[in-house]
Amino acid sequence: MQKIINFMASNCKTDMIRFDSDYLEGCHPSILERLGQTNLEQTPGYGEDPHCERAAGMIRDLCKAPDAAVHFLVGGTQTNATVISSALKPYQGVLCADTGHINVHETGAVEHSGHKVLALPSSDAKISVAQVDEWLSSHERDFNREHCVQAGMLYLTLPTELGTVWTLKELEAMRTVCDRFGIPLFIDGARLGYGLASKDCDVTLPDLARLADVFYIGGTKQGALFGEAVVITSDALKKDFRYNMKQNGAMLAKGRLLGIQFEALMEDGLYFRLSESADRLAERVRTAFGKAGCEFFVRSSANLVFPVLTDRQIEALSRDFGFEIWQEMTDGRKAARFCTSWATTPLQVEALEKAVAAL
Amino acid sequence: MQKIINFMASNCKTDMIRFDSDYLEGCHPSILERLGQTNLEQTPGYGEDPHCERAAGMIRDLCKAPDAAVHFLVGGTQTNATVISSALKPYQGVLCADTGHINVHETGAVEHSGHKVLALPSSDAKISVAQVDEWLSSHERDFNREHCVQAGMLYLTLPTELGTVWTLKELEAMRTVCDRFGIPLFIDGARLGYGLASKDCDVTLPDLARLADVFYIGGTKQGALFGEAVVITSDALKKDFRYNMKQNGAMLAKGRLLGIQFEALMEDGLYFRLSESADRLAERVRTAFGKAGCEFFVRSSANLVFPVLTDRQIEALSRDFGFEIWQEMTDGRKAARFCTSWATTPLQVEALEKAVAAL
Amino acid sequence: MQKIINFMASNCKTDMIRFDSDYLEGCHPSILERLGQTNLEQTPGYGEDPHCERAAGMIRDLCKAPDAAVHFLVGGTQTNATVISSALKPYQGVLCADTGHINVHETGAVEHSGHKVLALPSSDAKISVAQVDEWLSSHERDFNREHCVQAGMLYLTLPTELGTVWTLKELEAMRTVCDRFGIPLFIDGARLGYGLASKDCDVTLPDLARLADVFYIGGTKQGALFGEAVVITSDALKKDFRYNMKQNGAMLAKGRLLGIQFEALMEDGLYFRLSESADRLAERVRTAFGKAGCEFFVRSSANLVFPVLTDRQIEALSRDFGFEIWQEMTDGRKAARFCTSWATTPLQVEALEKAVAAL
Amino acid sequence: MQKIINFMASNCKTDMIRFDSDYLEGCHPSILERLGQTNLEQTPGYGEDPHCERAAGMIRDLCKAPDAAVHFLVGGTQTNATVISSALKPYQGVLCADTGHINVHETGAVEHSGHKVLALPSSDAKISVAQVDEWLSSHERDFNREHCVQAGMLYLTLPTELGTVWTLKELEAMRTVCDRFGIPLFIDGARLGYGLASKDCDVTLPDLARLADVFYIGGTKQGALFGEAVVITSDALKKDFRYNMKQNGAMLAKGRLLGIQFEALMEDGLYFRLSESADRLAERVRTAFGKAGCEFFVRSSANLVFPVLTDRQIEALSRDFGFEIWQEMTDGRKAARFCTSWATTPLQVEALEKAVAAL
Repeated sequence: MQKIINFMASNCKTDMIRFDSDYLEGCHPSILERLGQTNLEQTPGYGEDPHCERAAGMIRDLCKAPDAAVHFLVGGTQTNATVISSALKPYQGVLCADTGHINVHETGAVEHSGHKVLALPSSDAKISVAQVDEWLSSHERDFNREHCVQAGMLYLTLPTELGTVWTLKELEAMRTVCDRFGIPLFIDGARLGYGLASKDCDVTLPDLARLADVFYIGGTKQGALFGEAVVITSDALKKDFRYNMKQNGAMLAKGRLLGIQFEALMEDGLYFRLSESADRLAERVRTAFGKAGCEFFVRSSANLVFPVLTDRQIEALSRDFGFEIWQEMTDGRKAARFCTSWATTPLQVEALEKAVAAL
Repeated sequence: MQKIINFMASNCKTDMIRFDSDYLEGCHPSILERLGQTNLEQTPGYGEDPHCERAAGMIRDLCKAPDAAVHFLVGGTQTNATVISSALKPYQGVLCADTGHINVHETGAVEHSGHKVLALPSSDAKISVAQVDEWLSSHERDFNREHCVQAGMLYLTLPTELGTVWTLKELEAMRTVCDRFGIPLFIDGARLGYGLASKDCDVTLPDLARLADVFYIGGTKQGALFGEAVVITSDALKKDFRYNMKQNGAMLAKGRLLGIQFEALMEDGLYFRLSESADRLAERVRTAFGKAGCEFFVRSSANLVFPVLTDRQIEALSRDFGFEIWQEMTDGRKAARFCTSWATTPLQVEALEKAVAAL
Repeated sequence: MQKIINFMASNCKTDMIRFDSDYLEGCHPSILERLGQTNLEQTPGYGEDPHCERAAGMIRDLCKAPDAAVHFLVGGTQTNATVISSALKPYQGVLCADTGHINVHETGAVEHSGHKVLALPSSDAKISVAQVDEWLSSHERDFNREHCVQAGMLYLTLPTELGTVWTLKELEAMRTVCDRFGIPLFIDGARLGYGLASKDCDVTLPDLARLADVFYIGGTKQGALFGEAVVITSDALKKDFRYNMKQNGAMLAKGRLLGIQFEALMEDGLYFRLSESADRLAERVRTAFGKAGCEFFVRSSANLVFPVLTDRQIEALSRDFGFEIWQEMTDGRKAARFCTSWATTPLQVEALEKAVAAL
Repeated sequence: MQKIINFMASNCKTDMIRFDSDYLEGCHPSILERLGQTNLEQTPGYGEDPHCERAAGMIRDLCKAPDAAVHFLVGGTQTNATVISSALKPYQGVLCADTGHINVHETGAVEHSGHKVLALPSSDAKISVAQVDEWLSSHERDFNREHCVQAGMLYLTLPTELGTVWTLKELEAMRTVCDRFGIPLFIDGARLGYGLASKDCDVTLPDLARLADVFYIGGTKQGALFGEAVVITSDALKKDFRYNMKQNGAMLAKGRLLGIQFEALMEDGLYFRLSESADRLAERVRTAFGKAGCEFFVRSSANLVFPVLTDRQIEALSRDFGFEIWQEMTDGRKAARFCTSWATTPLQVEALEKAVAAL
């Protein structure tokens, strides 16, 4: 899958309304405000400060997981590589969808740590319980299994790269298969808020804490300047995780910057309100394209919309709107990606609705 | 692809005629004889002895490559991992067919060295020039390419896992595409002799030395106790290769054991005569199954034959013959693999011919 | 060397004046101001935005190195691991002082990337040209050198962990020895400003750009929230560096945060004024301890002071001041570390001066 | 430590008597005989054959360790890297003497697998229980320990590179300290037979099996063509060890070659008789140099002797004998290394005795 980014070319047009991605802006203003208020506080470094402690506590409460370990890392690639490499034995790999971020868009960070990404074919960025079960069973039955990479972890994304989500029933089934084969379940939540706020997703934070061995609550794409909150419920994975962080360059010197941001996001449900807003606006975008007779590349939810457009339609919309071309279809049309975020406003979506209606 | 090995189960039947693999026996008797003759010679270790020197010279001569570096390693996985990791930058991976040994049956040795195996789909274990070209072009065009693993080497196998071979024209085209994108071409020759002796293969050792940056001449499956002779023609890859060998545990203390074996194999064309014999016997096996009305899983040559058999046929043949079940077909039949070798005798093949005719 | 941190214990005393480290606070206020001003700008991610471009230009100008590549990374461990692993062949290691941060305090991040840290003994955190020359010559002469790690880079720190600095003459000699053996010179500048502002250091940014193949200008300890600006002058090391960054989780999604911070620091010489201030205040601390008759663990400059104190003196100072106990001396006294920074005020130092005078 | 090998230079002199190393010749004749007898047996590959099974059983019996896992690998570097990397977490390193083979002469194979070698200073190639205890305690006390590599294994060698050996009491104390800190003990036995046969060593195979979590019985230097028998008594380390072997290129295709060799060595105590012979001959060499008034670089036992010689003495002995120059002394004399082996004859030692007496 190849993204063709039109951002740089149109970069000069500052009056454009952008649906390119969910990390176009800085952060929610309340975060900057907090950084200002706390700026001259003197705290220990490396995440051992009162802000990280308080933010971790808030997250444990929200997850109803009083024994979970909560760590704050800077970005997604770093988080994935650190979590995965800390869980695997040298000869183990990580099972995921072939569209998974770790398989496609992290320049081989998992392999750099010595492990194979075991990619399963997927059309909607999800893999089925049956696929996972079959892979694991097949490995066990294989007389040559010692010549093959063993799966040591299952990696899912919520929501996926294509904005699809998991139901509680699906995650429970994944948990069961993981238990049967004794491998941990890791859920990449770079856009977790948008996923949980989706009407197609009946999963809650406590569900995740109960079903996953480790998952993370994304900040970078959800209103923070940067930051991902890793929640570890498995005792085996908790041990010495901070050594892994440090070794992977994932222990921020002024760790409190992460704590402060997650304090701001988790207080009064800001994180969830921002997610909800983005998802509702994405629904309006989805509805607009549907009304205009567009097909969709994938039945997405969360904050991502993938209408299939003709070149003429793309040209028309490109005048005033930024978005990504995701993939070329066999008939020459192109799947586009429109992405709302914590920063998207109703006015911006209204303008898009009008333009889409006029296609 | 999953092999179901019936060897262990039937291990007690020592009167069975085995076509399971090409590494069932020890070695060609002339090698043992040489080891005996040289046993009490005192030589320097680590491949810096007169036998390695002489064997390397013989290989350079056979390849018409007077400037090639020749190194002797113990086994295939070790050789692949050492060659590949010595050639790649950290963010690079190696392009190969999805059936490639490095992708399937080396327990992630390439990933263990930090690099992604970039697998291209293949039905006959070969990939096309167009596939390679498209992958490399597509990476160059991708605006997100820095988020993706870059290809730093092309890995081919001659013959492939399925006994298919490359023509000179195909390899020349591969060379051209490698040159255009500036990546080295590596040919895994674990069964090289059987490949070169195939009637479908018009490639010679000097062709390989001219077209590949690095390749190896397999010994383990070709009549040696063990050993692979790596031939490096690219100056960039020659530099400090022995450091890489040592680091990968691939520098045999009594390196002369490798030199002595390759001296024996290369003298008087023994290596090529043994390969020729195995291929001609494989052709007889192929013909026998064809006459019996069997379809083939793949149009193989070299020393591998893949008839598609019913359970009844498998049962019948299993009484007296050892072979591998390679893959189950959708209709319930199974692709079997019969493998001849340097050690296979005409009498053994005659017995198999009779049994196949009686199916 | 073992640090005994007294921060956590005394954390409750918020009226304490802290000389524990140079990353106790957030950032210089002008940076927060800039982040506020630019917060809702929409920019491309991953460091390809106008702020990074402008900051890189400013750094190139300051370095008088118009062809240098400038990249912004988040933290020191990440930067060291990314730079070092991108430069080395698999069988190469990096030469450094045994006190070097990469050898002692990065949880083996360099080894995690597959490379040995080749530590040379040092008393003042510096190594001599003669030591480096001898190591490299000795390797070349060694008949067993292929069994040993080869040095592929020289790593220096300016200033060192002990606040010592390099003179221009010393760096020029290091450059000469690196050239003779064909290895790149990397200078870790996590506290570069404090080093360059030292009265013992006659080196300038253009000198560094001329003498080092790659170095970095630290932000985290110098008034930024976080961030290190890597300057690469060697063409060989420039190639594909961003792939390395991404693979190491060192490509910040909202890369502009780094650009914005370095714009603020480099404009109007703020970075250098802050460094100058910290160094002058450190000199006052040094003078105060000297006057009080204290010996020094090392003749440091820059922003670090290492007085040797008795337990009684430590107890007295600990009432109102935070600082680190660096090392226990053989006679029971302890070397303490006092660290000034961009945030240290003359009033704070005055208070310390009084307390020291009263010891 | 730097070896100056005089082998290559004098290689032409085939009438020279060599004490250069213990891997100058092929193997004990009984091994070649066995290889001949079994040559055309057809067996499964990868160590799953009756010969490996039988040899493993013999070793378990000799070790009085009926539950031990026994695996056969090809060479020492490979064995060390496979055992160590299979036991460590990513952020852990291995404690050893600074003279340890893994630290000095394996081209960074351990670091290549991602782990730091934590070298402790040593004068006689041994480290003390106190050193190990202090390192481990000190790490636990260190407030910055998460920024440092954690020790995950203790690596000892029996005998050491300098021919020194461990007593049972010392090993028991090492075991106690390992238990207290919860790390496994690994003993490199590349020359194990020579060590166990030493009069200074009261350790037996059952002692090793009881005290070490994993150790190996060296073959390469002890009369085999190649091969090391790894004995694992720790259940944690047993699990999936063959996956690690395969990934490290350490699973020999014709694994039976290793089984056959160890069958020959272990039957009728051949291994121990050969070791005993080498050690008794080394004692004669030691006595000869002592009588001639030579000092010794180290009080070695086993099959290694390190007399300190003048240039004149070296020149005199070099006419008829091969040996290594180990290290230059401060007074210009040189420590030489004389090495006996399974292949050394009393006649050869007699000749050396005469030459030494005439110095």
